[in-house]
Amino acid sequence: METAHSRPGHPGALSFQVPVPAGAFRRLYRFMARIVMKFGGTSVADISRIRNVARHVKREVDAGHEVAVVVSAMAGKTNELVGWTREASPMHDAREYDAVVASGEQVTAGLLAIALQNMGVHARSWQGWQIPIKTDNAHGAARIVDIDGSFLIKRFGEEQVAVIAGFQGIGPDNRIATLGRGGSDTSAVAIAAAVRADRCDIYTDVDGVYTTDPRIEPKARRLAKISFEEMLEMASLGAKVLQVRSVELAMVHKVRTFVRSSFDDPDAPGMGNFDNPPGTLICDEDEIVEQQVVTGIAYAKDEAQVSLRRVADRPGVAAGIFGPLAEANINVDMIVQNISEDGKFTDMTFTVPSGDIDKALAVLGKVKETIGFDVVQSEAGMSKVSVIGIGMRSHAGVAATAFRALSEKSINIRAITTSEIKISILIDGPYTELAVRTLHSVYGLDKQ
Amino acid sequence: METAHSRPGHPGALSFQVPVPAGAFRRLYRFMARIVMKFGGTSVADISRIRNVARHVKREVDAGHEVAVVVSAMAGKTNELVGWTREASPMHDAREYDAVVASGEQVTAGLLAIALQNMGVHARSWQGWQIPIKTDNAHGAARIVDIDGSFLIKRFGEEQVAVIAGFQGIGPDNRIATLGRGGSDTSAVAIAAAVRADRCDIYTDVDGVYTTDPRIEPKARRLAKISFEEMLEMASLGAKVLQVRSVELAMVHKVRTFVRSSFDDPDAPGMGNFDNPPGTLICDEDEIVEQQVVTGIAYAKDEAQVSLRRVADRPGVAAGIFGPLAEANINVDMIVQNISEDGKFTDMTFTVPSGDIDKALAVLGKVKETIGFDVVQSEAGMSKVSVIGIGMRSHAGVAATAFRALSEKSINIRAITTSEIKISILIDGPYTELAVRTLHSVYGLDKQ
Repeated sequence: METAHSRPGHPGALSFQVPVPAGAFRRLYRFMARIVMKFGGTSVADISRIRNVARHVKREVDAGHEVAVVVSAMAGKTNELVGWTREASPMHDAREYDAVVASGEQVTAGLLAIALQNMGVHARSWQGWQIPIKTDNAHGAARIVDIDGSFLIKRFGEEQVAVIAGFQGIGPDNRIATLGRGGSDTSAVAIAAAVRADRCDIYTDVDGVYTTDPRIEPKARRLAKISFEEMLEMASLGAKVLQVRSVELAMVHKVRTFVRSSFDDPDAPGMGNFDNPPGTLICDEDEIVEQQVVTGIAYAKDEAQVSLRRVADRPGVAAGIFGPLAEANINVDMIVQNISEDGKFTDMTFTVPSGDIDKALAVLGKVKETIGFDVVQSEAGMSKVSVIGIGMRSHAGVAATAFRALSEKSINIRAITTSEIKISILIDGPYTELAVRTLHSVYGLDKQ
Repeated sequence: METAHSRPGHPGALSFQVPVPAGAFRRLYRFMARIVMKFGGTSVADISRIRNVARHVKREVDAGHEVAVVVSAMAGKTNELVGWTREASPMHDAREYDAVVASGEQVTAGLLAIALQNMGVHARSWQGWQIPIKTDNAHGAARIVDIDGSFLIKRFGEEQVAVIAGFQGIGPDNRIATLGRGGSDTSAVAIAAAVRADRCDIYTDVDGVYTTDPRIEPKARRLAKISFEEMLEMASLGAKVLQVRSVELAMVHKVRTFVRSSFDDPDAPGMGNFDNPPGTLICDEDEIVEQQVVTGIAYAKDEAQVSLRRVADRPGVAAGIFGPLAEANINVDMIVQNISEDGKFTDMTFTVPSGDIDKALAVLGKVKETIGFDVVQSEAGMSKVSVIGIGMRSHAGVAATAFRALSEKSINIRAITTSEIKISILIDGPYTELAVRTLHSVYGLDKQ
């Protein structure tokens, strides 16, 4: 193999001492990549769409690439299965939930293998326990701990397309474990890492990652590339293209992840162009040559603001407040603590999802006496808008530009949090769209 | 354990040197049986019915029995899954078909485990590959080759109800293999054999095996017991209570199999009576003390009769005719060959399903020249009625009684075949109901 790779121009002179898989010869004569393709629920909603997915897969196979495919359940199926488990018992066993719910992806995997075979593509479906995709024991929200890539690499050698049921693996208890909702993205990225794929193509119902939500700002542009770090902020801030966990995994293992549309005609011009297909590449920032200062504007609606006044300013107070909230499964987001004026008391503001506000206030009511604070003010119907860009690490004044722009539109800023690559601003909900458009424009994102 | 069993009346005096599973104590104090319970598709059609099934299971668990449960897919689900595989490709790969179709039972198993847990019953679902239930490689119509009973016996020891997805196992290729339609009955009987169960209870949408079809003869009576051999004839002759293969398996392994209704109130009086619950026991003939001469009347509609005239009477002719029919997957049933009058030619009559008649005639047209016969006559719309009873082995005149009774009703007999425990008579279809009622009455089956 080393010989083969070092002398690509002289295949005729090669003499292999060991059997060489067919792929090795293909590598010699043409550019060949290893691709993991992932298709979500709306992309496999019925047999005609599954057939369309098969055409996407066939295109890549015909181009000589090594292909593994990860599929979700047909749209609606997972909800049906989850509904049944709830109907059977409101307090259901997560292990049994997994056994039931995992069947959705298994069905799609088999059907896609059949559709591929029908087009003359050598394909075979696999479930998590067969490969195996090993997870931890956290049924219903398991994490992948190990994938033996050699199983799939062997399939590549046989020129076989492996169609893999997403969203699941097998736990140490020898039972099916699911990764939690949306886990098929994570499956795909983990498999891509295990087989050292050149790229993980996530086919979805949008055609890429945009500078902001095009439903709010029609001038939003599709990004050709975005860094893992930026995508992580975009994903966790409400741009629902990819699951946060899959982006984290891609970042850790440096899996080049490509978001593209499954609804495009599989054989349209450019679709099979490996280096520049239509979509957005999520990659290491080193790969992004012309880095913009700001990459995108994200937003999250339905936030609620909670303010505590005259909080005792002593060690352990934050833990005393946020510990019980976390135990109640309330996701606290922005936290702002003012500087104590007298060294005794401070004010504290944070946000929770609007739907959790009553639960949060109940929890705070219980700890109020122990911790010691005066007044709890709360207001629902807030929104968080965020400016994201790796470039802002080396550019000053990005935040000031945002504050000035919002001020000019008379948008009141309720709270601000910042990180190295992100500025988040809490505003009144009704101003969300105006704020997004204003920020999108002020950083020049609506221009080429 | 030996000591325990030999001194059941003196549990207080026992001194165990080794840890004893809880079941051993229960065995001491009360009668405990090991039961495999199987529930078909209509019995688990929705969550409320699954909950009803759980009540049946709980009743047996509460009575102290060791219980394993085998379930089918929810009614309609298998057809939906099969429909999808056909839609994906008319010529689908049996391995992929299996991966898709097996999911139906997996869903039911998980849901029933949840419903049982909700009632406080310690339960856990298992799929074929986990136990494992090993099959051969004949995907889509696999046969069970081995079940490691110790896996399930270990669950009994833990007082856990194992809920097992029926209709499937794992093949030597490490892929899910299904047993063919209706295979859940076979799963249940095979599991009962593997764990040496005291009984295999098949819960279905009828409450037992009747002397004939009650829709045709309202005076049909439910049989308390029927022998394996008789049931095999009843099953293969059109009494669709149990799959033929499951009865064969029960006979070979002497698995006492009990047919009963899942729609009865699980807690109605007598339901939990181990020795005499409502239903029909299929068992060894030794267990049937008062054996009737005739046990039941079966029928099969839509048979077609084919007659060949002047068939050359020489060795190899039958093989030359029936070989090609078998290769064309045509199920030939009754075969009657007349004695050759001149030693040169004979007549031959046989039946095939009406739906296969055109295919059969085409096959015969091809072999006509080679074999040598003159005329092919065929007629569809026939019915086969059968008189079944182990007792007829030792009673003469059973057949004569049938012929006389049919003759008195002017029912024309087209062909007759007999075995040790069965007489089958081919008649014109429109007389089916009359013939069934006539035979049911002439053998006294409508009396107590």
